[in-house]
Order: sequence, then structure tokens, then C-alpha cells
Amino acid sequence: MPGTDTVYSAPDFGAPPLVDAPLATFVPLVKDGVLPEGFFSTSNLPTYVHLQAGWVMPSRPRMDCAILRRGDALETIEPRKLVAGDLVAIGLAEDGTEGIFVHGEGFLAPHSPNEFRFMSTAVSRERPVNYELLASRLVEERDRGGYLLWVPGPALVHSRARADFEWFIRNGFVQAVLAGNAVAVHDLEAAMFGTALGMTETGDHEDGGHGLHMRAINAICDAGSIEAAIESGLITSGIMHALVTEQVPYVLAGSIRDDGPLPGVLTDALDAQDAMREHTVKATGAIFVATALHAIAVGNMLPAFHTRYDGSPTSLMTICVDQTEFVISKLKDRGTHQAYGVVTNAQDFMHVLRHFTKSCIQS
Amino acid sequence: MPGTDTVYSAPDFGAPPLVDAPLATFVPLVKDGVLPEGFFSTSNLPTYVHLQAGWVMPSRPRMDCAILRRGDALETIEPRKLVAGDLVAIGLAEDGTEGIFVHGEGFLAPHSPNEFRFMSTAVSRERPVNYELLASRLVEERDRGGYLLWVPGPALVHSRARADFEWFIRNGFVQAVLAGNAVAVHDLEAAMFGTALGMTETGDHEDGGHGLHMRAINAICDAGSIEAAIESGLITSGIMHALVTEQVPYVLAGSIRDDGPLPGVLTDALDAQDAMREHTVKATGAIFVATALHAIAVGNMLPAFHTRYDGSPTSLMTICVDQTEFVISKLKDRGTHQAYGVVTNAQDFMHVLRHFTKSCIQS
Amino acid sequence: MPGTDTVYSAPDFGAPPLVDAPLATFVPLVKDGVLPEGFFSTSNLPTYVHLQAGWVMPSRPRMDCAILRRGDALETIEPRKLVAGDLVAIGLAEDGTEGIFVHGEGFLAPHSPNEFRFMSTAVSRERPVNYELLASRLVEERDRGGYLLWVPGPALVHSRARADFEWFIRNGFVQAVLAGNAVAVHDLEAAMFGTALGMTETGDHEDGGHGLHMRAINAICDAGSIEAAIESGLITSGIMHALVTEQVPYVLAGSIRDDGPLPGVLTDALDAQDAMREHTVKATGAIFVATALHAIAVGNMLPAFHTRYDGSPTSLMTICVDQTEFVISKLKDRGTHQAYGVVTNAQDFMHVLRHFTKSCIQS
Amino acid sequence: MPGTDTVYSAPDFGAPPLVDAPLATFVPLVKDGVLPEGFFSTSNLPTYVHLQAGWVMPSRPRMDCAILRRGDALETIEPRKLVAGDLVAIGLAEDGTEGIFVHGEGFLAPHSPNEFRFMSTAVSRERPVNYELLASRLVEERDRGGYLLWVPGPALVHSRARADFEWFIRNGFVQAVLAGNAVAVHDLEAAMFGTALGMTETGDHEDGGHGLHMRAINAICDAGSIEAAIESGLITSGIMHALVTEQVPYVLAGSIRDDGPLPGVLTDALDAQDAMREHTVKATGAIFVATALHAIAVGNMLPAFHTRYDGSPTSLMTICVDQTEFVISKLKDRGTHQAYGVVTNAQDFMHVLRHFTKSCIQS
Repeated sequence: MPGTDTVYSAPDFGAPPLVDAPLATFVPLVKDGVLPEGFFSTSNLPTYVHLQAGWVMPSRPRMDCAILRRGDALETIEPRKLVAGDLVAIGLAEDGTEGIFVHGEGFLAPHSPNEFRFMSTAVSRERPVNYELLASRLVEERDRGGYLLWVPGPALVHSRARADFEWFIRNGFVQAVLAGNAVAVHDLEAAMFGTALGMTETGDHEDGGHGLHMRAINAICDAGSIEAAIESGLITSGIMHALVTEQVPYVLAGSIRDDGPLPGVLTDALDAQDAMREHTVKATGAIFVATALHAIAVGNMLPAFHTRYDGSPTSLMTICVDQTEFVISKLKDRGTHQAYGVVTNAQDFMHVLRHFTKSCIQS
Repeated sequence: MPGTDTVYSAPDFGAPPLVDAPLATFVPLVKDGVLPEGFFSTSNLPTYVHLQAGWVMPSRPRMDCAILRRGDALETIEPRKLVAGDLVAIGLAEDGTEGIFVHGEGFLAPHSPNEFRFMSTAVSRERPVNYELLASRLVEERDRGGYLLWVPGPALVHSRARADFEWFIRNGFVQAVLAGNAVAVHDLEAAMFGTALGMTETGDHEDGGHGLHMRAINAICDAGSIEAAIESGLITSGIMHALVTEQVPYVLAGSIRDDGPLPGVLTDALDAQDAMREHTVKATGAIFVATALHAIAVGNMLPAFHTRYDGSPTSLMTICVDQTEFVISKLKDRGTHQAYGVVTNAQDFMHVLRHFTKSCIQS
Repeated sequence: MPGTDTVYSAPDFGAPPLVDAPLATFVPLVKDGVLPEGFFSTSNLPTYVHLQAGWVMPSRPRMDCAILRRGDALETIEPRKLVAGDLVAIGLAEDGTEGIFVHGEGFLAPHSPNEFRFMSTAVSRERPVNYELLASRLVEERDRGGYLLWVPGPALVHSRARADFEWFIRNGFVQAVLAGNAVAVHDLEAAMFGTALGMTETGDHEDGGHGLHMRAINAICDAGSIEAAIESGLITSGIMHALVTEQVPYVLAGSIRDDGPLPGVLTDALDAQDAMREHTVKATGAIFVATALHAIAVGNMLPAFHTRYDGSPTSLMTICVDQTEFVISKLKDRGTHQAYGVVTNAQDFMHVLRHFTKSCIQS
Repeated sequence: MPGTDTVYSAPDFGAPPLVDAPLATFVPLVKDGVLPEGFFSTSNLPTYVHLQAGWVMPSRPRMDCAILRRGDALETIEPRKLVAGDLVAIGLAEDGTEGIFVHGEGFLAPHSPNEFRFMSTAVSRERPVNYELLASRLVEERDRGGYLLWVPGPALVHSRARADFEWFIRNGFVQAVLAGNAVAVHDLEAAMFGTALGMTETGDHEDGGHGLHMRAINAICDAGSIEAAIESGLITSGIMHALVTEQVPYVLAGSIRDDGPLPGVLTDALDAQDAMREHTVKATGAIFVATALHAIAVGNMLPAFHTRYDGSPTSLMTICVDQTEFVISKLKDRGTHQAYGVVTNAQDFMHVLRHFTKSCIQS
């Protein structure tokens, strides 16, 4: 928190490059409220303007304004207040080379001239998602023989992205899935009853729906295993069906909130960690979708790099998709700094990514 | 908050329909951990089971369990703990007609038998979005001559959904746009410089980007109006371009956080309200995307119904899209109960909705 | 989602009570822009006003307005537009008894007259938290010999609420704690090094801090158990110290994101569920603070009632504290409908609740 | 996003300081699962260990592990898997001075040795709030004759923090308040009826409550001004009462979502900006509580520094309190980089801050 004890260090105007800086240029307005081409647009940082009289700080500083000159007095002012004839400072550079110096380093250590900017937060719902790049990276990893881990949360099943995830599995973009009991339960409930926790694909409720996931688990227990349930024809679609029929390995880790659990779930956390680790050591990329527990667990095991292509360290592509910035920031706060965050809904992410990936393959 | 002073009113077992209820049925397990077909799946509400000895509450109540019978003792128990030969209660009905009664009304007034359910929250990122239905409703409104208001926030421009919004404008799905100065500023910055607040479409930063929106405003001020800037060829694409060239009316309301403002912005809040109101009285539908201030302002003006088709009140379709549940719940808390919430990213929403709307038109 | 196929059922004006309703009253303004006492304030629902000529719907409906009469024409209008002499409708009742009928049931099934309201969402950061009531309920449970379960997440330790939680433990408000390995690890790291994940109480970072939790775990492993580490004097403060020295039982459940784990952690999810269940069956109240996984896990096991005071079902007080509405809504969506949500920061919650609880004891 | 085209630059082991680095030290475990004092705790970054044979990267890299030596082979391994006699690497330094080098700069430019850390996100609900420091800064500003701007949102009134805010006003901590019509409306509704939007202080609803804010506005319009309503005895408590009676200046800016508005509200956004600016140029500190629109508007006008104490630039203390990280990050993304974020509930923040400020004064 900024305190009054932060000592401000003024720029050294007697040393290069500032000692050699030209005087600032001022140009008059031709029309009321319309600034001349190339006007200087202010930031909120300490700013010095080079006049004959020396370096002057404009009064009334604020961002998104012009600098008005009246004699040797300079004022930071909203463009709408200016009229024809008013003199305003000109310049795009903030390092003194056009006679204006923005001294971000005075007490804001991380800033330097030309570094004031908007939208600098790494993870934000307001940043555009570069789906073309994501898609091309997935295709590149697949085609190079990479090992892509997918770590989905149950919201991916709640929200109808099942079919999209199936598509990625069947088209070679998934080398392993690390998930929890709930993902499989919801997927199998959907396969058997068309619902997830009793809710249909359109968000309506089945009567007696609250028991359907228990009936799905029971049916799989009766079959003996997920694989057996698929072989017997009980389960004919969905994520687990795609994984088994495409022979993509998966780990289902147990947790204290599980119903059942399904046969095959590793209920001991250490057994589950060991099984997951055998996949993280092979990974060349990882995609976390709508999961906090599993994202952080896998993030903990995942190096920031891999050496599988040519032996030298390569950045390990780590994509984290969540509805809010929180999970992604938490993942970074648990050490997975390299995560690229996508702040959106799991259903929409899968749908749009599939669309772009299809286009990328066809082009 | 539940207090100990809430008096529980037990069911009246001496009156119909409970007096006539059959005894509950119990069936033994054939296999360890596998329940018989039609087993009763518990909720967390007070539950009574009809035995010869009378109505008995099972011990150790919890949801997602079976009811085990040992003589006249009943226990709520996890299926995984049961073995072959154990007797469990059978039944799907919770109203006593199969000998089991769930007494939700005991102190949870809103609940009644068969009403225990999961996923009952109206607004949640975990609920699937029914894009088919949304798209068909848009097409229906357009084809009936409805009046669809769109109320976008600046995130729609930050995040590259501009082209998708243009498509909706050019294809007749937009009868009026109510927005703020910032939406137009970012759109015009994007048209002129390819950035929004200095950030490119791929999320990178232009050098000196923090002044670009000021330069865009200045250029429009110089042109005299948005319309003049379009006519002169300065602006050749984007949302404002589509609105002007398609002659779709728009209102740009001013706010205290505006730069500029652009020519044509109504800086007086009451003038802006009056202009907006002339559109809300005509509306047959409204779509709010990624805006809190404007969504609530328009929501305040919007009736829950309209009478424009046949004179009788018809529900006014109100869709609110936001990244989190908060804005949508707030909108409802400000009286717009009819709002249908979509919890997702503005960019992805527009992209997926366009895709489904195109399919709907072509089919 | 509201569709055009929702059929509107008009009120039956020929039947009681509407057939006997009086005519609406209108009173003129005395001053421009100042409404008469008792003016009718509109909602956004279909509204009928009883005139000599029959029941009339005012034009231009919206909420927060007055109803202006000009002859037999009625208009919904903003108060600021009215001048002295204008006639406006009077009335507080919306059920026709003052000549105005709000027909919420037309298509909004859940609404009836006088039910239009703001702030009706159950879980919202905007709702005041009734700390007096919360505190008095805790004291009441303690003094009656209740069994209060606390289910804390690690944020409670990250954020310095450790001392407040210790106070509750030492003053008899905690009968059992159900938590994960991480809560204990952070608490023990704090006891040994004054940090949590290497961050100090003031939010600064220790050099080499990222290894401190591993060193804490290692020290406990060396001691053999948490109890042994306390007995030996290695650990002299904090949550685990308070639990052990006050002989309050606890369950530490393992998960796939655990480091260590600490000795005593139940790494098998089913063993952990069984241990937790022995506490949930005794609970008369439960407080979840800043945890998603554990809140939902315990919520699943927790009945909506208990029978421990006099044998008859009593609502089981369930309080869920989280930074956002999401976890609380999710808990409700997983069946724990009775949860009372507090949307705030864990640190502030504990601090304020301790303050109110102290006051409650002393008064 | 990390791409495969990021070229990794290996460390230069032939140049200082690495050329002079000692060999790494290894020490055997004495007890199964218990590491030796001073063990090296891994991160997820490329790590090199100096052996006789040269610098070796351990296999199976991940964070929170030990490095096991078997001959010249090194493996990154979970401590729980180690047994007595296993040799593990020792060291706290990551810069090679103990024979281990963490090469964060390989492709993660911002990282260097000893910089891997947890909890590095600036704005997070998981970071502790240093209320002692906040309180002491407020007292310091007050006592130096500073000029503290408060910018509250309506949630501060919804949620009963009114009395706490009054306390700050009456004790000299508030030099100006910049807010919107809604803050004043809710405050006056609370003063007259004990409700905010019809909701009482305990979160319950008054019958007919939805009209109460309209009745409050109407009463103030009748009085002629807020000041007149206070003088006449209509309003006897609350925020507006404290401001008027303590002669603290305030600006109420209008917006398109306003009811009324109240007399005295500046409905033109540019008039409101001008009035607000006269306060921002004097500010030595600013506190934003639960407001997005006003926080960003005032943030835009606020320099990152002031020169009011001794003429030289001093950091301008800017505190932003919000329920989620989003508003604070958005404020930073709009250029107010210096904002110190507090992620909590407005009611709790005001209550706890008042408590600490009182203690600070008394000590």
C-alpha cells in the first residue's frame, strides 16, 4: 500500500538523455474542442514538460487529457474545455525525446516511460480469447505427437459440452483425462437418462430426478466396471464411452464428496496422485476446464516445461478455463505461473474451440 | 435463518391420504453393493416409512442413500456399505403412495413431496444455456415484426464480438441499441486503429496505445458527428457503422466515467432516460450483454410484458448475459424478475448465438 | 425463458373480490414534481385501475412511477414530469381493495398482489448480515449442549482469522472440526514460521518462503503426529493446538492436491467420509467457512433437521460463508436448501462474529 | 500463451557465477519419510544440480518435492516415498551458490532465482488485509491535514454500514464524498423508514416496501432540498445528515438508472465531472467502497500522486474495496495502477476498519 514514507526520486535533468532533450512543441487548436494531430495524451504519472524556463510539471494532473500552455503555466485539461487558439503539447513519446518526460519510476518501480497502459491485468474476462491461436496450438501438439492432458470438472457435463469433448477425444486431441468421480457419474447419468443431477439438457427437471445419479452408479456397479457397462451396450455415448472405445487412458480420483463411488475410482488420494503423476511427467500440454480441485492438484504436479521434443526445455502449454478470474489466479498463486487463463463458460468454450479447431484442420 | 423456535408440524397419519397408504416394500440385495431395481433414494428432509408397526423415521438421515431394514429398525445408509441379503426400501414416490412419505412441509414451507431436487437455482453458470431456444425466439420476434432492444456493454467491444453484433444488426435482429459513450468509443477506436483501449484483438498492446481512444474521439469531434465520420469514409466497419448504415436507431447515454464524450452522446441523465424510454415502450424483447449500469437502467424502464401483438399482455422476453451470476441477480433484485440469465463471456455468447441463429434461419 | 406461447389469463373482474372493488382515487399535485401523500407507486406487472368506465390498464407501463389521469386515459409517468394540478392515483394496496389491481399471476405464476419487491434473492452480497442473530444462535446452541460442526477452508488460515477461530474453540463453540490437510498444514506453518505458503500476516513474502510448508510438514512427520508435535513444544499456538489442547475432535480428510500429507490425515476418501459421518449424525448446527469441496461434502451428509433436543425434528442451522454467491448457491443446488448464506471475506467474518459473540455472552 | 516457438536459452555454466559454483550436497534420511534439515524444496522451473559429472537436470520435475540421488541419476520425488538411507539434495539458495541453479529466466522472463513463490497475485480474497496499516494511514492523513475522498456505492447503505460511515464523517476522516443519487436515496429511505429498497436492516421485507424509496424522494422534493429536509427535522440520522451537519462537501452525480432524482443531484455528466474534479485535484487519499462506476470515474480523474505536503510528488493512497477481484482489477486496467485492493464485503470492511481506527486513535 502506498505510504507517505515512499521517497520520491526526481529525474536527473542534468544527465543524459534528459539534458539533451528538445523543448516541447505546442500547437494551437483550429476548432473548438478538436485537438491538433499528434497531441500528447496524459497518464496519471508524474509528468515533466521541457520549456525554455526548464522542466515544468503541469498542474491538475490526470489521465486522458491534453496539456494546455498559458505562458509558462501548464495545465492538464479535458479536451472538451479547449477552444480554438489554445496551445496544447504535441508528442507520442514519454521518454523526453519530444520534450515530455513521464517519470513512472519515481515511486512506481515497475513503470518506465511508455509503460503506462490499460488492460494490463493478465487474467480478465475483458481480454479477448485468441481461439485461432489456441486451436492451432492443439493441432500442432497433436500432429507432433504431443501428450495433451485434459482435466475437466463436472460443469463440463452439466452444461452439455459433452458432445464437444467427445469430438476432441475421437479426433486425437486427448492423450489422457484426469478427473473425479463426479465427471464420470454425470456423464453416465446423461448417457442413461439424458440428465445431469436430474436436470435435462435444456435446464428443466425430471420428476424424481434427484435419484437418477444414484441409479446410474448402481447400474455401473451391477455391470462391474465402466468398461463392462460399455461392452454390454448399457452405455452407448458420452465422454467415458469415447475414452474407452478410443483407448485413451483416464484416471478417476475419489473425493469426500463422492456418491458411489463408481468402480475404478481411486479412492485413496495418494494412489490417485501416483496414477496422475505418471501422466503429468509425459505431458506436453494441459487443458483445465471448470475445475478448481483438479486444476490445482494437476498444476502442482506439472512442470513449467517439458523436454520431450528435442531434449531441451520447452514451455509446457497450460490453459485454464474458468467462469471467473479467481480459480486461474489461485492456480498461479499456487505456483503454476505459466497458466494462460480463459475466463468463460465451459460449455461455450468447448463449442467455440471445437469450431475453430475444425476450421484449423480443414484449412 | 433457521432458528430453534421454528415449530415442526408432524404429518397427520390419521387423515387421508396417509391413513390409506400401503406398507413400504423392501427387497434384498442380490450382489454386494448393488441395489435392487427401483430402490428408494433419500433426500435430507424428514422421511417416514410405513411399517406394520407404524410410520418410522429412519435413523442417521442424509441424502443420496438407501434405507436399510433390520427388523423394525430402519437406517439411512450408503449403498457401498450394503451386502447381498440386506433389505432396502423400494419406491420412487415421496407422497406416501408407496409407503414412504417425505415431509418437506414440516418446516421448509416451500417444499412438498417430490420437490426435493438439485440444480434449482434460477441463475447459475452450471445450468445449460438453451441456445436453440434463444435463437428461435429471436427469429420469431424478427419475423413477427417485434421490437428487439439490445443493450451492450463495452466488454462486447473489448472482446471481439463486434463482428457478431454487426451480423445481428445487418440481419434484422436489432430494432434499437441503448448504450453508453464507451461502447461507441471502443468500437470507433477499433474501426480506426484495430484496438480497444490500446489492446489488439489478440490481447497484445500497442505502443502508445493508451492514447488511441482519445485520438479516436478527437477524430469524430473533428468530423462533427458519428454519421459524418461514416459518410466521409473515416469509419468503415463496426457496430456504429452498421447501425448508421442500416438506419437502426440508437441512444448513447453519457456517464461520469466518459472521455470525450462523442458528439451525439446525451450527457444529461434525464434527457437520456427520456430518449431510452421511447424505445422501452415499444419493446417486445430485450437483450442485455455485459453491462450492469445499462441493464439495470433499462430493466427499470421495462415492463414485464407488452401488448403489441394482439393487445393482450405477453411476457416480454428479457435476456441478461453476464460473466457472473451477480449482475443478473441484481437485475432481478431491482424488480426485473422475468430476466432469463445466461452466465457466460460476452464474446463467446455472441459467437455461439450467431451460429445457432444462422442455423435456425437456414433450417 | 418467457416465450410468446405463454397464454395470459386476464383477471376475472366479474367475480369477487374485484366485482366489489371501489373506484380508484385520484388526487391533484399541489406543487410541481411533488406527489400527494399515499400516491400509488407502480411495478412492472400488468396493472388495472378501476374507473367509472371499467378497469383500465395505464399506457407506457414501468416500475417506480405514478399513474396520471387525463379523462379516462391513464399513463404511467415519472414523478419529475408532473406539475401542479395533475391527477395521480392513490393507494398502497395492489389487490383491488383501493381500486387498483396488480395481476402478477397473469403469467408470472409465483407472484401475487403485493408481492412485487426488490431484494428478494436469498443469497446476495447486498443483503445485510444479521450478526446479532448469528451470535445469539451460536450461544444458544452452546448453552443447550448442541453439537456445532465447523468446516473451514485454508483461506481462513491464509487470512489471519486463526486467532479468532482459536477463540471460538477455546470458548466452547466448536464440537468438531472437519477439514482437509491444507488447513492443518497452513496452520502449522503459521505456528512454526509465521507464514502461510510463504506469505506473512501482512501479505509480504519471505525469501525461500515457497518451501516453508514443506518444512512444516517434515517437522510434524519427524515428531510422529500433530499431537506429539504439540506435546513436545514444537507447536504452541493456532487452530490445531487449540483443538488438541481443548480435546475437540477433528477429521482431516486427504485430497489429490495435498502435500505431505500430515500424519493423521485420512487419505482414503471413504474412510474420511465414514469419520465425518459420525459427526454429521450428531450435529445440531454447522458452519462452513471459505470452502467449496468440504462444504458440499459435509452438506451432502447433513440432514436438514436433527432430533437431538426433544426427539422431534428441528431445523439444523447451516451457515455457509463465502466470498461469492456461487459456492452458497452450489451448496443449495446440491440439495442443502436450508443453508443460510453469508457473502463476505473469511477473515472479516470471523472477526466480526467473534466481536458480536463476545457482546452476546457479556450482555 | 506459451508456444513451442519460445526458444529456451540454457544457462552459461562456463561463466561466473556458475563456473565457480560448488558441488551440491546430499544427505541421507535417518527415518522413513522424514527429510534432513535444510533439504532443497523444488519448484516447477528448470533446475540444474551440480555433480562431479557436471550440471544435471533431475528427472520427473515438479514443485514441492525433494531431489533424490541414485549414483549420478537425480529424480524429483515426493518426500513420502523416501526411506531411511536415501540421499537428498540440501540447500535453500536457487542461484547456484549451494550447487543448485533454478533457471527461471530460460523462458519465463520475469522470473529469476529465488523468485518462484506462491501468493504473488496482487489482488486476491486470500491475501490478508492489513487493517492496522490502513487505520494508521487514515489517522496519519487526518492528522497531517490531508484531503480524503470517499467514494461509496449503494451497497454500503443496503448493508447497514451507514452508522460506521457516519462515525468516520463525524471524526474527521472524510473531506469530501463523491457518490450517486442512489446512495443518498437509500440513506434517506433508511433515515425515514428504516429500510433500503424496502428491505429492513435484518434483511426482511416491509409490505409495500417497493415504493418506500419513491416516498423518500418525494418527501425530499417537497422539502426542497436535502439540507432543508435536515433543517426541518425530517431527516435526523445517516450519511447525508452527517455530511450536512459536519459541513463536509459532497457531489451527487446523476445516472440513467436514477429514480427521482433528488434535488441537488447533478444530472449532467459533464457538470458532475467538473464538480468531482475540484475535489480530486485536492486529494491526498481516496477510498472506494463497493462501487464500479464511481470508482472508475474517480480513478480516471485521480493522479497517482499529489504534491500537497511539501511540493514534491507523494504517492496518493488509493484503496478500493469490493466483493470480488474484478472491480479492483478493472480499476487497475483503466490505469489506476496504484490502487490497493481489499476484497471483502462493504459492511464488514467498514465495521472492522472503524474498530481498528478507534484503537489506533486511543493508543
